[in-house]
Amino acid sequence: MHGCCHPAQMNLIILHPDELDAEGRCTLTDGRAHHIRTVLKAAAGKALRIGLLNGPLGTGLATQVGRHAVAMKCTFEEEVPPKPRIDLLLAMPRPKVMKRLWAQLAAMGVGRIVLLRADKVERYYFDSHVLEPDYYTDLLIEGLQQARCTHLPEVLIRPLFKPFVEDELDSLFQDHLKLLADPSGEKRLADFFLSEARYDRTLLAIGPEGGWTPYELNQLQEHGFQLFGAGRRILRTDTATVAMLSMLSAYSNTSSRDP
Amino acid sequence: MHGCCHPAQMNLIILHPDELDAEGRCTLTDGRAHHIRTVLKAAAGKALRIGLLNGPLGTGLATQVGRHAVAMKCTFEEEVPPKPRIDLLLAMPRPKVMKRLWAQLAAMGVGRIVLLRADKVERYYFDSHVLEPDYYTDLLIEGLQQARCTHLPEVLIRPLFKPFVEDELDSLFQDHLKLLADPSGEKRLADFFLSEARYDRTLLAIGPEGGWTPYELNQLQEHGFQLFGAGRRILRTDTATVAMLSMLSAYSNTSSRDP
Repeated sequence: MHGCCHPAQMNLIILHPDELDAEGRCTLTDGRAHHIRTVLKAAAGKALRIGLLNGPLGTGLATQVGRHAVAMKCTFEEEVPPKPRIDLLLAMPRPKVMKRLWAQLAAMGVGRIVLLRADKVERYYFDSHVLEPDYYTDLLIEGLQQARCTHLPEVLIRPLFKPFVEDELDSLFQDHLKLLADPSGEKRLADFFLSEARYDRTLLAIGPEGGWTPYELNQLQEHGFQLFGAGRRILRTDTATVAMLSMLSAYSNTSSRDP
Repeated sequence: MHGCCHPAQMNLIILHPDELDAEGRCTLTDGRAHHIRTVLKAAAGKALRIGLLNGPLGTGLATQVGRHAVAMKCTFEEEVPPKPRIDLLLAMPRPKVMKRLWAQLAAMGVGRIVLLRADKVERYYFDSHVLEPDYYTDLLIEGLQQARCTHLPEVLIRPLFKPFVEDELDSLFQDHLKLLADPSGEKRLADFFLSEARYDRTLLAIGPEGGWTPYELNQLQEHGFQLFGAGRRILRTDTATVAMLSMLSAYSNTSSRDP
């Protein structure tokens, strides 16, 4: 956890299932304990918002708040919040940009993130420490704690374009509405959500800063991607990703809002 | 310019009006020259995409590309691209977050940015170097060069909430649709753009991470702000800002699209 060095907001304290004993008691000793004591200024008896990783939200009743450890008695809601309905196929951006993006992706709610090599992606990006599971999991959890969500995005790293698209894409994203932002797209994002057809899940593809090659674009279209135009501004990958995820989640909530 | 130290994309080279002589010639010696030579790998005769700050787009014909200087002959389009129609009233976020936000705001297109003190904004945020004009202007121009736009956002820094809201807000944003994201908002952002009433400009208010106080919320509503709910996730200020600007620009483009 990054509790001390990252002054990110922790609006929810996320617990791993194996941190709890059979009676729902747990003791924290890391950045979360530090946060509970110094930022939340909790004392014994205080109820804290908690969440079980990939599980329900709940309440942690602080039973002891010490300088080095915080003990809680945890209870959880019965229902698990719904999983995010958007998945992301992202041409691996510069590591510096990806570093900024991890927490934001978890906070906005993405079910599965595929980081893909494309022709205009430098091969060395895949050697970066920002793709090490320990590193990005901490940032993803930071995003979940900020946004008060528990679903940890699943991460797939695919340094080869062709085998991923030919052998994995279809089966991983069978029933998805597949959308790809490209200047040649004549439809707008909204158009896909005005029609009657409803999809349970959407897969959004975002290309490299230099764009997909015609071959790549063609391959992706053959595997079900439909193009949309996203305006004339050329946005940095992290900005574009946040912008498109937010529009997508606005449109898909509108079109499938419960009565 | 940050040409060397920030490997941001420069999809447009922005020139200041006073860098051009009467015949439209200019000589660059800074990060832009370095970018033209090393990234664009331009030689004499190459046509480069240029833009005049707050003015039209155009073409710069490289006449000399040297190790330390690049000379160009510039011509510009007749029409100046339209100014962004969204303005932003932002409770000053942590300086680290604001630093990340500058270029993104310019890239997404914001006409005017007001950075305001609120009760839950630390006073020392206003002493940060990220609010020095030289510092943020470089980042704003970086964002314009990334997005291929020329309109430099106007920046107003207001360390006092009350005098700004009481004495300046109304006159600065007279004819704006004024929208504010708050958990108590029952309308959704889309609802404001489905009605017949059309506004030329929108002012979006984004509060501090701890929220506006009831007094602040009340003051802002008295000065014309309408509330909307932005979902249950609590996003970091920079993520929330990019997300809301993108939704806003999608909706306002849809409702006022030219026939």
